[in-house]
This record gives sequence, structure tokens and C-alpha cells, in this order.
Amino acid sequence: MKLGVCYYPEHWPETIWAEDARRMVDMGLSKVRIGEFAWSRIEPSRGEFDWGWLDKAVETLAVQGLEITMGTPTATPPKWLIDAHPDILAIDAAGAPRGFGSRRHYCFSSQTYLKESRRITESLAARYGTHRAITSWQTDNEFGCHDTVESYSENARLAFRLWLEDKYKTIDALNTAWGTVFWSMEYRRFGEIDLPNQTVTEANPAHRLDFQRFSSGQVIRYHKAQAEIIRRHASKADITHNVMGHFNAFDHYILGRNVDILTWDSYPLGFLDQAWWKEADKQRWMRSGHPDFAAFHHDLYRGCNQRWGVMEQQPGPVNWAPHNPAPRAGMAALWALEAAAHGAEYCSYFRWRQAPFAQEQNHAGLLYPNSEIAQGGVDAAAAGDILSQIDLSQQTTHQAPIALIYDYESKWLFDIQPQGAAWHYEKLCFMFYTVLRRMGFNIDIISPDAPLTGYKLVAAPSLPILPETFLNRASKAGAHVLLGPRSQSKTRDYQLMPRPNSLEAVLNITIPRSESLRESVKIPINMGLSAAHACIWRDLVETASDNTAVIARCTDDYPAFISQGGLSYLAVWPDKGLIKSVLTHVLNTCGLPQLWLPKDLRVRQFGGLKFAFNYGSKIIHLSQLYPGADYIYRTDKLGPANAAIWR
Amino acid sequence: MKLGVCYYPEHWPETIWAEDARRMVDMGLSKVRIGEFAWSRIEPSRGEFDWGWLDKAVETLAVQGLEITMGTPTATPPKWLIDAHPDILAIDAAGAPRGFGSRRHYCFSSQTYLKESRRITESLAARYGTHRAITSWQTDNEFGCHDTVESYSENARLAFRLWLEDKYKTIDALNTAWGTVFWSMEYRRFGEIDLPNQTVTEANPAHRLDFQRFSSGQVIRYHKAQAEIIRRHASKADITHNVMGHFNAFDHYILGRNVDILTWDSYPLGFLDQAWWKEADKQRWMRSGHPDFAAFHHDLYRGCNQRWGVMEQQPGPVNWAPHNPAPRAGMAALWALEAAAHGAEYCSYFRWRQAPFAQEQNHAGLLYPNSEIAQGGVDAAAAGDILSQIDLSQQTTHQAPIALIYDYESKWLFDIQPQGAAWHYEKLCFMFYTVLRRMGFNIDIISPDAPLTGYKLVAAPSLPILPETFLNRASKAGAHVLLGPRSQSKTRDYQLMPRPNSLEAVLNITIPRSESLRESVKIPINMGLSAAHACIWRDLVETASDNTAVIARCTDDYPAFISQGGLSYLAVWPDKGLIKSVLTHVLNTCGLPQLWLPKDLRVRQFGGLKFAFNYGSKIIHLSQLYPGADYIYRTDKLGPANAAIWR
Amino acid sequence: MKLGVCYYPEHWPETIWAEDARRMVDMGLSKVRIGEFAWSRIEPSRGEFDWGWLDKAVETLAVQGLEITMGTPTATPPKWLIDAHPDILAIDAAGAPRGFGSRRHYCFSSQTYLKESRRITESLAARYGTHRAITSWQTDNEFGCHDTVESYSENARLAFRLWLEDKYKTIDALNTAWGTVFWSMEYRRFGEIDLPNQTVTEANPAHRLDFQRFSSGQVIRYHKAQAEIIRRHASKADITHNVMGHFNAFDHYILGRNVDILTWDSYPLGFLDQAWWKEADKQRWMRSGHPDFAAFHHDLYRGCNQRWGVMEQQPGPVNWAPHNPAPRAGMAALWALEAAAHGAEYCSYFRWRQAPFAQEQNHAGLLYPNSEIAQGGVDAAAAGDILSQIDLSQQTTHQAPIALIYDYESKWLFDIQPQGAAWHYEKLCFMFYTVLRRMGFNIDIISPDAPLTGYKLVAAPSLPILPETFLNRASKAGAHVLLGPRSQSKTRDYQLMPRPNSLEAVLNITIPRSESLRESVKIPINMGLSAAHACIWRDLVETASDNTAVIARCTDDYPAFISQGGLSYLAVWPDKGLIKSVLTHVLNTCGLPQLWLPKDLRVRQFGGLKFAFNYGSKIIHLSQLYPGADYIYRTDKLGPANAAIWR
Repeated sequence: MKLGVCYYPEHWPETIWAEDARRMVDMGLSKVRIGEFAWSRIEPSRGEFDWGWLDKAVETLAVQGLEITMGTPTATPPKWLIDAHPDILAIDAAGAPRGFGSRRHYCFSSQTYLKESRRITESLAARYGTHRAITSWQTDNEFGCHDTVESYSENARLAFRLWLEDKYKTIDALNTAWGTVFWSMEYRRFGEIDLPNQTVTEANPAHRLDFQRFSSGQVIRYHKAQAEIIRRHASKADITHNVMGHFNAFDHYILGRNVDILTWDSYPLGFLDQAWWKEADKQRWMRSGHPDFAAFHHDLYRGCNQRWGVMEQQPGPVNWAPHNPAPRAGMAALWALEAAAHGAEYCSYFRWRQAPFAQEQNHAGLLYPNSEIAQGGVDAAAAGDILSQIDLSQQTTHQAPIALIYDYESKWLFDIQPQGAAWHYEKLCFMFYTVLRRMGFNIDIISPDAPLTGYKLVAAPSLPILPETFLNRASKAGAHVLLGPRSQSKTRDYQLMPRPNSLEAVLNITIPRSESLRESVKIPINMGLSAAHACIWRDLVETASDNTAVIARCTDDYPAFISQGGLSYLAVWPDKGLIKSVLTHVLNTCGLPQLWLPKDLRVRQFGGLKFAFNYGSKIIHLSQLYPGADYIYRTDKLGPANAAIWR
Repeated sequence: MKLGVCYYPEHWPETIWAEDARRMVDMGLSKVRIGEFAWSRIEPSRGEFDWGWLDKAVETLAVQGLEITMGTPTATPPKWLIDAHPDILAIDAAGAPRGFGSRRHYCFSSQTYLKESRRITESLAARYGTHRAITSWQTDNEFGCHDTVESYSENARLAFRLWLEDKYKTIDALNTAWGTVFWSMEYRRFGEIDLPNQTVTEANPAHRLDFQRFSSGQVIRYHKAQAEIIRRHASKADITHNVMGHFNAFDHYILGRNVDILTWDSYPLGFLDQAWWKEADKQRWMRSGHPDFAAFHHDLYRGCNQRWGVMEQQPGPVNWAPHNPAPRAGMAALWALEAAAHGAEYCSYFRWRQAPFAQEQNHAGLLYPNSEIAQGGVDAAAAGDILSQIDLSQQTTHQAPIALIYDYESKWLFDIQPQGAAWHYEKLCFMFYTVLRRMGFNIDIISPDAPLTGYKLVAAPSLPILPETFLNRASKAGAHVLLGPRSQSKTRDYQLMPRPNSLEAVLNITIPRSESLRESVKIPINMGLSAAHACIWRDLVETASDNTAVIARCTDDYPAFISQGGLSYLAVWPDKGLIKSVLTHVLNTCGLPQLWLPKDLRVRQFGGLKFAFNYGSKIIHLSQLYPGADYIYRTDKLGPANAAIWR
Repeated sequence: MKLGVCYYPEHWPETIWAEDARRMVDMGLSKVRIGEFAWSRIEPSRGEFDWGWLDKAVETLAVQGLEITMGTPTATPPKWLIDAHPDILAIDAAGAPRGFGSRRHYCFSSQTYLKESRRITESLAARYGTHRAITSWQTDNEFGCHDTVESYSENARLAFRLWLEDKYKTIDALNTAWGTVFWSMEYRRFGEIDLPNQTVTEANPAHRLDFQRFSSGQVIRYHKAQAEIIRRHASKADITHNVMGHFNAFDHYILGRNVDILTWDSYPLGFLDQAWWKEADKQRWMRSGHPDFAAFHHDLYRGCNQRWGVMEQQPGPVNWAPHNPAPRAGMAALWALEAAAHGAEYCSYFRWRQAPFAQEQNHAGLLYPNSEIAQGGVDAAAAGDILSQIDLSQQTTHQAPIALIYDYESKWLFDIQPQGAAWHYEKLCFMFYTVLRRMGFNIDIISPDAPLTGYKLVAAPSLPILPETFLNRASKAGAHVLLGPRSQSKTRDYQLMPRPNSLEAVLNITIPRSESLRESVKIPINMGLSAAHACIWRDLVETASDNTAVIARCTDDYPAFISQGGLSYLAVWPDKGLIKSVLTHVLNTCGLPQLWLPKDLRVRQFGGLKFAFNYGSKIIHLSQLYPGADYIYRTDKLGPANAAIWR
């Protein structure tokens, strides 16, 4: 795994570029991303290009042997372009334009902007496509950041109508799929259909789900338009895009198929502070991030494309979370090693030097604004040092024994009609993931359409639209399937799944209805050693009382967990006690022995090596869990923010 | 009392209609509502009517002997109509149109829509007005649902100006009534007056109150336009409209005077989850609803029209509350019996079969989508069974000994200027109601203008605009009057009531000012056996220290409860201890002996019968409270979700 | 100090004006404010003036010897003016007009309204400028109330561009200052610049800070336009404006330089209920207000202009806070005496008689609507009585030993990028202030640009833009300087301050980075007698381990408090324990002995007199704290809502 950094030469005097490049190399970095956001410097006015500074910057980096990722600057169209073509702007759900003055002020459905994006990409790719040092290209930056996937513009409306016509062919087919007979929502032609905003009460859920699919598709279409041009000019370079964490507004599996390598931006502290974790956890890991946050996304994006990396790695306090503490010294090195252990090709820090101006002036870099080294720089150098000591070149990612299904359509579907206020698809998936990781496993996160061969356990925390072939494929693969609540509850058209569905058929049960519960309600379940409860959601299963597949029941007798042959079904939202018992049950069924790691410790098998990471503030002794380890980096006494590696 | 159901033949293949109708009859149902929401099927394009399917549906139901309620489909104008006349749409307070894509997308002040509503009503009524099976007609559906009473359209503005001119005649009269000299808000002519939205800070409260009166009136006007047409074509049928629970944006007493029978839509679980009750209560009654929720509305709507019923009764989990648990088995039968005990003519479940598509796909029906019977269907059949066992035909609703005054203008007035953040008019009224019901009483809920003859106690939890004749009428009726805080504090023009007012005069006190308190502040009052406190609000009463009418004082000596002759006045917002003590005092004065029912038990006297209902999860023994009862249905051991009936 | 009242003769029949005036005099009042809000009565239609009623009102008051403050009525432009010129209206950040129907419905950048404001001011000033009784003039009313400083109108946009051109001269200078190279935000000309609203994510902070400076300047410009006209016609009268509490949207120091006397509107109960204090404090002081609320603003506005007063003093329950309790009897007198002790020229109650109509009908006056005296009237009379007993004419405000720096630009800067959700500039300043006042001190609150001569301690709780001359001026003045966290962190252009800054240089430390913390995180610090913690914010200071200036460290070794020679620096947001220890340390360094007053007691030295105020509900004995006092008003046994005065 290589280390890299994001660099903005346009922010600094030319006189210090060479010194910057030398210091990067000295720090052990070999990759640099540049160019994204620089449109106003590349083309200060329409058609007036200023390549001089960028030529020089590229050359200065290349001379030091740094590999360059060139970003297209389309996340930040300049003012002169917006003033000439205000139809570039996206429109929010309330009908207001999302204007110039920050970034991402464009609508994915704007034909004008698609043309302009192609034009600037063409210019950039034509000039630098064959440059020896530019080994990869990044399209745009963080598609969808600041809720920009959806736009309610006239452009979007027209494109959505065409998209619907292409999908349904006839308006009757759409009316049937959406059930528009309900509330007299029927359409006579595609030209009558509006976007699903500004309705009196909730819009038709099928209408909304299709709009989300369309909006996701517009992102991919936009990306592909740039990728085609880059491919033409830079046939040997990798094309990538940097996606984000906890972001679901477009389908990352599809984007993953349209890049050579998928990269992502990992900010463990910012996400801990702003996401759903409990106050006590937010305190506990305020200086390390949640131990599973980065790992979850590493595994997820590896599921989108075998080749993947970290394009932006948090180096210190950031500026955008509600609270922005400093990471524990060493964490920025640990995070890089965690990426390595998950099979990243590179890990690139954001950013080289903290900018003293504009929106992100409080975002740390590897250097302080005055060029002194910051803790992030110290950590990056340490990571480089460790990576040079251990030889990862012979190691590759092996398939994990366990696949966790994560599905973007499920996320959209549940967001559109949660039916229970506390239902939270990502949280449920993350609960499964974190308990499995505490049990010591490597996990692959994959799409419901991905091959299942080679897995012993395939766990879908919830999969409302169960692909028709899913159970068959798992069965052929010899994988045990664990499905969570609400699985197979809906059709692709956002209708209730007709019963009996295959889950019911296999387990000889009926799931005629479900219920959602207030968060304070906990229904006890007698299973396993620890207290176990259903909360938030129950599928209310009916079955014969002598159905031996029923492993555990709620106190009111509703089956909670059912398992038979190769299929297990968890009918309720589990608390932590229940999820541990259920996973223990299915893992035993699969013949997969489990550990139970301390709260702050995580491990990852990478090829022939085992990595251990301490996310806590105290020393952890590994010898009890892993006796007789043959350490190649550090030993069994693992300090805070430290990693150990053994064979 | 008859049982019924809401049915949407347009959602299902014609081939199953006959079977549906047969099963309804078998289940003990005798009434079916159809038609509302079906505009796009009745008139797929302007002027192109398709009566065939509806003729057949009506006939299919009629053949089984089912009585039909035909709904006008005006809650859902179809897309072709909106596209042709976008001025139909309502405008929200921020100035945005409330568009097509769900329902209720129309402005009550749209002249175009009034005309179109008349046109479709005329067509429907002309065709079916004299059909033997159609015994009643419902106008539109749930007026005001999704906050649709108020619209800030140009149409509304023009209509409001005419309404004001009609009310005030001269602009000087309006200026005086509204006190527009304050802040230079004076108008020179009615044409200068805007709607009270988008002001810099709060608009004039009198302006707002008049706008609410106007908006309420527009709903009635709109209803009457349909009712007149229906009456013309269907002179023998009942005209109804189905109102909602906890909904106050128009005056239901006035609507009640403009229907033959008033019906309402009762969803005990959805409302419990979403309304103001404490977390512990929401847990306790999550499967039964608050024991007084339905009863309160039964009594309220009976106060709007002697003839009343339930048009939509919750049959199982719904889709629209934050959390949607399943009702306890039997509850949908209990709710029907509670309606019967309050004198309902019928109770109609919503809906026959759960729809697998569109917005309400997670809303239970009596049948599952695959036509299997759901718990709601089981309960409905059980209710039918019970009703066939007991003979209610000889029973009628007797006047209750106690009248509770509930007033829509009071609600609007307090919402406009709460003056204390925790003031909550409905909650205060409900507190009075629930304590009286715990004491075992039948209660009538009536308008402040209703006759008072026959009542022993008339309790107005708060009545800021006290009708001039109110105290006189009560006195003539021999009823004791209990007035709560803020009573008689305002004039009809939303000005402070000049002092001394009649309340002050009668009790020989002065109420020169009031105060609102943070919710954490509790001021002790020495009254009764349990701890009693003032909170939220105090009218700061001044009086001679030897005024013997003062029954209880706050610890800082302000009078809290004053009672003399036929008038009692509670000067503060009471906690539960205080309200019990106060009601005990006035009930004793009235010679009305009280019980104190267990928390989950409620009783209702209906004619010569007494009904008891168990809203809890444990068995309740009735014999101690009601020894020697002559049971006609069940006995003194009352299980969860069960009712008992005795003479 | 004189007492006064706000009066609205236009609200009452002429027949009672003379009696009102007589009663004012009898109550000890000698000043009356009138006229503001009365535009629709002065000019009922364009050009049609009705002076008769106002002439008479002025004469009626003058005859009784009352001094009049005449308000220009521009806070309430009448409907005919708005209808003729809708461009007068401000536009909110979402792009919607802020319409007619309450008050302050104008944009400070509207050229039309500036012209109209001049016209009405000219008319009023020409008529009454030389009237013997009109000794002062108030421009408009409460600039900025209801968030009206900022407007996003086309007028504002054009004016902002001119303001920027005037400030930066060249677009290059602006681009450099704002760092627009970041995210391609560069401008080619001033005409390209928009207002910083409706951006996709946060706008450039420098853009926002300049917009706030511009908006603040527009308020001052608007005020000056009126003041020039008034000065021309009323050369001998004082010009004032009445500002508010806890209001920071324009720079009050600058307004203070443009009035003869600055006045403010003091509502202690309303602000306690609505501001940041803890629930327990809101309960404790619900009838008195926070003991430091009024004092803080008295000291602040005296720092804006040596001549100051209270234009509106709360007399009883108000209408605009979430909860509106009645003040303890006597508080309205105590508040007046607190103003006197701080050097106010006058204290004027709002309002004479409670209006029974319109928006403020629940706002108490000195009289009830029926003209009976209210508690406010009783208190006002008592205040008059006390003031007539003690002779304050020989007393003047002496400079305090301690200056607290309060800075409007700091407030704006922190609001634009808080970087920590719990950071609260006013709260931090108020914490310093209240602890110093508990220690018994007089405090001056001053601008960072004010002279420092004469102070022993200058405390800046946080001063991100430290004026270049600040430390020098303090040093020359011999004042010890205490700077709090984030001081000197930013340049005037809203960029990070280049390091080393002067604070680092003097203390021989480095402050390369900072962190913000969740509110639940408390980092212990070993300092002083009570438990001390850092929370919310830490500047992460680096220094040699033998730096003797470091007085206290966090448990993780980061320096928390550093002091050397004349400079102390608190690197963290302090809890109460830490702030007490730090202030004790610096006060000892300055040779200023401290007391520790009971929680409800405050004292103030005024000239040769000492005032003590009891804000609690129990008697406080002063003798232990102030033995041997020579009382001129009351004695050492200080009851609730009472003041004592001694030499």
C-alpha cells in the first residue's frame, strides 16, 4: 500500500512547491492528488486558459517521482459560468435555487452543465492525458456531498419523464406499478408526471423510489461522461472517484463498476461525532473514531470494486462536525494500517498543508499553515516507516468467510416509508457488522446481486427486495443465509410482496403483518446467555406451534428467531443481547468458531498476516486471545493508537 | 348499532367483488362506504365518464343487501384537472403551492374548484341519487387533513376581504375591533387587507382569529355546496361527512348542523402515539389506545349532532403514526362496543382489504391483501356477534348529568397567543374529561352556545370568550358552573375583556392579571387529600381576605379555587391532585356521588345498560365496584380487551 | 436619575390625557416618550398630515412639566406606503419578502425607504424641533428587533457591492482577503458578488463577516440620516436610540458614537426565560431576573456612550417570552435603582397603561387597561419616592478597576464558524462578568479599541481579532491583561492569524491548533480549591516543560492557564471552578482583594455610595460582608426585592 496526500498548489506561492514535493517524498508519500476545485485558475474566463501554473506544478511533483492523481474541477464551476448559465444550478425540494458561493452548485440533469463539464474535462485530459507522472484521474469530487444528488429542477423533471418512459414503456404499466388508482393519482401520459416534491402529504412511495433510482442514475451518467473523455486521452491511467462515508443517495455498486479503482474519504472523528452512536461511545472514541467505522467502509467499497483506496484520510481535527477534537497521537498512522489490512492500494491524507483562509481554515493538514509539521505529518511519516518495515507486497485480500449484504435500494425504500420512527437501516447493518468483528471475523460487504460462492454465512440484516435468485444462489454456494426483519416484504415496484413468499415457504411460516414499537418498549426473548429483547420492529410471524424451526420466541409467544437447514430468519429488530445470541447460533451452524474481543480491540486477517488495532486509551494484552503469535511488528502489549502484526 | 366497512372496488379485480360482498355480510357488516377518491376512474378525462364499473360495484353490494354510503371524490382532483387549472391548488403560509401527487391538493377558496366540485357531485348524485341501496352520502373526505383548512392563495385573500367587509361593514369598525392603531396597522379600505402570513413578527391576533373564522367558514361553505346538490338528487338519503380526532381547524359544531349525521374516523393507537401523552402512558396503552380518546370524541361529536357514527375504525396497525404497533386482539371489537355505548348509529371499519400499493400499503384492513382474514376481521366478526346477542334497539342515549364545554374559537384564540408555552387547551379539557370518567360519569361535550337545561354540572375547563348569556342560562337550568383559568378573559374581537366582568362580579373578586409558568414550577395548594399544585398558568386573583368563597389558596396566598352558590372558578392550571380535589368539591356540591375506577377500566351508561371496558393487559374484577350487577354480556371477571354489559 | 414612562396617547381617548399626565407627575415621573409607531395617525394617507392630536398630546404633557422624548415613527411604515412601494420590504435569507402586518417591515438598504424616512422625520422635526418640552428625540425603535438587520434584497445586494468596492478598491484585494482561490470562488469584478445566502453549503466566512459588517453599517447609516435632520431642527435636544438586550447584529459601540445618549430596553424576566441559563436558575430568578442581566447591559451601554439610560423598563409580566411570570413585588423599583447605581440618566417604564388590543395586549403597564394602578405603578412610585429621599446629584460614575472586553465582531465571527457546537461567546463573557460581580467588583465593559488607562485588570474572555496595539496599550496603562481561549486566532480578513503571534511571543508558547469538545467531556485541571475543568474548547498549547509561566495544566499535560508579567492567558473554556481560580489568581496579581457574595446579592459602588440589591426570595444580612456601613437607605437586613444604600 502506498501513501499519498491531497495538494492544492494554487493555494501557495510557486516558490515553495519544490520544497513541498521534496518533503512529501521524505515523509514517505508517493502519491499526490491535485486539480479538483481549480477551475477558476485553469480557465479564469470563458475560453481563456491558464495552463502555466498547472504545468509547473505537475512538473515539480513529477520531478520528485511522485505519482499524480489529476482531478477534474467540476465540483466548483466558476462564477462567470454560473452567471452565463443559471440553469446549471440545482433546485431544492422547496423550489429554491442552490446558488454560487460554496461548491457543488450544479444540477446533475443540467444539459448545459453536462456539456460544460465535458468541455473542461476534454481540455484537461487533452493536455495531461499522457503525462508520465499522472497515473490516475479523479472525476469531480464527492458526488452528492451536501445533499446534491437530488435536484428538483425543470431539467430534472424532463429527464425523469424520459427515464420513466424508457423504464415502463406504457403509462398503463407505470400506473399499475405505482398503484396510482389509489387517491386518483393516475396519469394519462408521461408528460403529466412531476417530481415527488411539494405534495400536500407524502408522495407515492413508488414515485419516490423511482425518483431516487433516476437521481442515482444521473450521477452515474454524469460520471461516465467524464470517464469516457479521460479514457480517450489517458488510456493507461486509472479512473477513480472519491466517495464518502455513511452516504447512500446513489448506488455505489454501480459507480464501482464504472471506475478502475474506487476511493473514499475517511474521517473517523467527524463521523463519530455526527452519526447515531450513543453519547458514551462518542466520548469513549472521541480521539480514535468508532473502531468499525473505517473498516465497514473499507469492506463495503471493496465490495464495489476489488481495487480500492482511501483518497482522503483525516489527519487531525476537522472543521465540519458539531465538535472537532484532536485525534490521539498515532491515530492517523493506525487508520492507514487499518486500510492496508483491508487491502487498500493506497491511503492519501487530506491535506498537505492547512489553508489559513476560506471555509476549511479549521481543517488540519499534515503541515500547519506556516509549514511546520503537524501531528498528522508525524503520523503519516510513522505510517510510511512501518509500511517500509513490513512487506505487504506478497499479501492479498482473501475472501472472508462471512458476507454482509448492504443494499442502497433498501436504504432508499426504508427512508421513504420507515413505518417506525426508530427504524434505521444503516444502524442495523452496522450492528451486525460490529458484533461479527468483535467475534474476530473478516467480513465482506457485498451487493445482494453479488456472487455468493465461497461464503459460509451470508447475513442480510434486512433485505426488503429479495432478489429472486438469492436463496437459490446461496443454496448452490453452500452458504447459510441469515435474513433480518422486513426481508422480502416488498416488490421492486414498492408494493407489498405477495404471500406466501419464498421465506415463508421455506420455513413453513406466515408473516402476515408487522409492527413498529416506541424505542422505550423492549420485549424479552429467552435466547442465549445474556438478556435479549426485541425492540423497534417485529414481523409478527404465525406458524404451527410444533414448528421446530422456531428457535426463540418473544414473551407473547411470537417467534423471534427461526432457523432450519440453510436458512435463518430473525423476525425482530434485536438489541445487542439478541444479536449476539443469534449470530452465535448461526455461526455455530456454519462451523465458524468465535472470539469476543475487548471493546477497543479489532483484528483483521490480510493474506497471511494478522493485524490488531487498539482504538482505546489503555494498553491491551493480545497473548490471551492470540497465544504464540509470531510478531513482525510490535508485540502483544498493544498501546493506545498502536497496531501489531503477526503471521 | 350497525357495523360497516370502507371498500375500494376500483383497487381490486371485478371478479372478486361479489365474494367480497358475501363475506362482508357473513362477517356481520351491513354498511359499506365507497367512491371517495375515485375521481380518476369515474372521469378519466374531462367530460369522459366511466360509470360502468361503479354501476356494477354498487349493484354487487346492493344485491347482498348492504347499505351503501357514496362518497364524493373531491378530496382527490385528478391530474388533468390540476394541469388545466393550477389555481385549484392551495398555497402554504410560506407562499409555495401545495401540489399534485398525494391528496387534498385544493384551496377551499378556489372558485374554479368549487365549480368543478359541484360538477362532479352533480354527475354522481344525478346518477345514484335514487338508488335503493345508497342510504347515505359523504361529502369529500376528512376536511382539513394534512393542514389543509388554511390556504394563503390570492383566491383566499380576495374572499377574506369580502368576508371582512360583510362582517364589519365599515373599515373603521374593523380598525377599532382589531386595534390597528397599534403599530400603525390601520387600513383605509378592505382592499388593503392581506392574509396574516409572512409578517416580520406575529400578526395582529384579531386579524389571525378572523382569518381562522373565515377559513373555517370556507370549509362549511364548500361542504354545503355539495350537500345542496346531493339533497336535490337524493332527498331520502342521509348526508354526512367524516371528521377526524384531535382536529380543530374548523368549527365542528357548525358542520354538525349541516349534516344529517356526523361521522368520525377513530384511530386510537395512531393518536396515542402522536399526541401529548406521557411516555409511560404511551407504553401502557400502546395496544389499546388511551381509554378516553375515542370516548371523548364520541361525546364531542354527539354534541355536534345527536345522530353520529364512526365512519373509519382502526382495524390493526396503521401506517401514519411515528410508531405503529398491533392492537391487542379484541380491541377492534371493544372500540365498536364503546361506540355503541355512546350511542353511535354505526361503526364502520377502515378498510376492507389492505392495499398492497401506494401510500397506505402498511395500513391494516379486515383482510390481508391476499384476502385471508386479519385480526381486524376477526374482531369485526366478534363485534357483530356480540351486537346480535344483545338487544340495543330499545336503548337510547340519555342526557349526562355533566356537560363539558369544548369550544373551537377558544382553541384558535389560545393557539394564536398562548402567552405560556405549556398552555394546551385540548389537554386541559381532556384532563377534566378523563378525571370525570375515572369517577364513573357519563359526560356530554357541548358547545358554549348549547342549551344547559338538565345538567347538574357544567364544566368549562377554560372559556376565554364567555357567551353573554352563559351564566344566566346555567342559573336558569339549575346547573352548577365550574369555570377554569382564563375564562372570560377576552372579547369576541380578541381584546382584553373589560373589568369587572361577570365572573368577578359574582364572586366578588378581581382578576387584574395572570402569569404563565415554566413547566418545572409547581406551586403547592392545600386542598383535598392528595398533593395539589398550580402549574403552567395562574390568574392572579385579588379579593378581600374574608371572602368566604375562596376555598383554596396557593402558598403565596393567591386564591386558587373559589366557589359560591352556583359558580365555581378554578383560577390556575391544575395538576392531577388539584383537579381531583376541585371536581370532588363541585360534584359534592351538585350531589353527584363519585367512584374512582382502576386506571384501565372505563364504564358508560347507555339507556338502561351499563358497559364496562378493559383497556389494560390484566383481568379486572368488577364486583367490588358494581356489586350485584345483572350481566347480559360476560361477567365481573373482565379480561384484557373485553367488555361486560349489565342492566 | 429621572424616572419616565412610554405613552401612546393615540391609543386612548383625548379626554383622559390630562388626567394621565397629572398621574404621571404624581407618581414621580418626569419624562415621557411618545410618537414612535404613530405614522398612520400622523400621516393617514400620503401627504395628508394630521398634527392636531399630536399637538394636543404634546401640549397636555408639557403643561404638566413633563419632558418629552419624541420618537420618529419609522419602525412602522403604514400600509399605503408599502402598497405604493413594495421595494421597501426586507427579503429573508430564503428569498421571501417580510411583509406588512406587524412592524419593522423595511429593508435598511431600500433607497425608497431611506427617502421616506427622511421625509417623515423632516416633517416631524420641523414641527416639533423647537418645542420647549421636547428635550430628546429617539430615532425609530429597537433597530434589528425580530432579526431585521440583515436583508437579502436586490437593494442590499447592490449596496453591498458598492461597500465592498469602497473597502477593497480592487477585486484582487478582495480575492486575496477572502481566499477565493479556495473552491474556485474567485470574482473578476465587484458586480459578480452576491449576498452569502442560498449557497449549497456554508458560504465563505470572510464573505459572511463582511456582509455582517455591511449590514451593521447600513443600520448606522440609516440612523444618521434621521439624526442629521433632527439635529438641524432641534439643535438643543438629545438624540437617542433605544437598543435591546442580548442583541448583537449591529455594532452598538458605533451607534453609541452617533447618539447624544444611548438608551436600552430592559426586560429581565423575559430574557431569563428565553436565554441560555440553566433550568434551576430560570426557576430561582423567575420573579427577579438574573441578578447580572441588567447590570451587564448597563455596563456595556455605558461603554458605548458615557451618557445612557433605560428607555423601556419591564413593569410586570410581558407577552413575548415562552413563559411570562409576574415579577416579585418591588422588583420594578429595584431595577430602577440598579440602573441608578450604574449611572443611568433616567429609567423609563414601558408602558403607561396596558393596551387591551393587538399584539401586546398581555404586556403589563404601570396601569391596568381600566386605569387602576398595577404593581408596576406601585413600584414606579416607590422608586420615585426612594430617589427623592437620597441625593444622587453629587454622585458620578467612577472608572471601575476592571475592564471586560466585549466585541461585536468577535460575536459575528464565532457565529459564522463556531467550530464547536457549544461555543457561545456571550455566555463566556457573561460567565466572566458574573463571577467578577460575585467577587464584589464594579466592572466596565468596553470595546477592544477603547482606552485602557486607569484599569488594573483588562479581561477579554475571547478576542479572536486582537487589535495590533492592544497589548501595548495595556502595558502602557499598567493594566494586567487576561485573554481567554481563541484570542488572536484570526486576522481582520477572517483568516488564521499567522504564527507566531504576539501572545505566543510574549509567553514563549506555541498554539498550533485547537479542539472543540462535546459538552459531556470535562477535562480535569489541578488549580485552586474547587474542582476545575476544561470543557467545550481547548487551545492546544505547546511549550517547553520548564516554562514557569504555565500555572495550571490539564491532566493530559496541555497547559490550561499561563501567566507571566502583565499577561495571563486562559487556553481553555473554563467551568465555574476554573474561572474562579483563574480570576482569583489574576486579581491577586493585580492587588485587587475579592469578596464572595451570596448567590442572590449584588453590590455596586456609585460615586461615594454603595448599593446592595437582593434578587432572591429570602432576607440577606449585609453586616458580615460590609460591617459598619453607614446606611442612608434601609439597613443591613435586606429583604427580597429590596435595595440598601450606604456611604
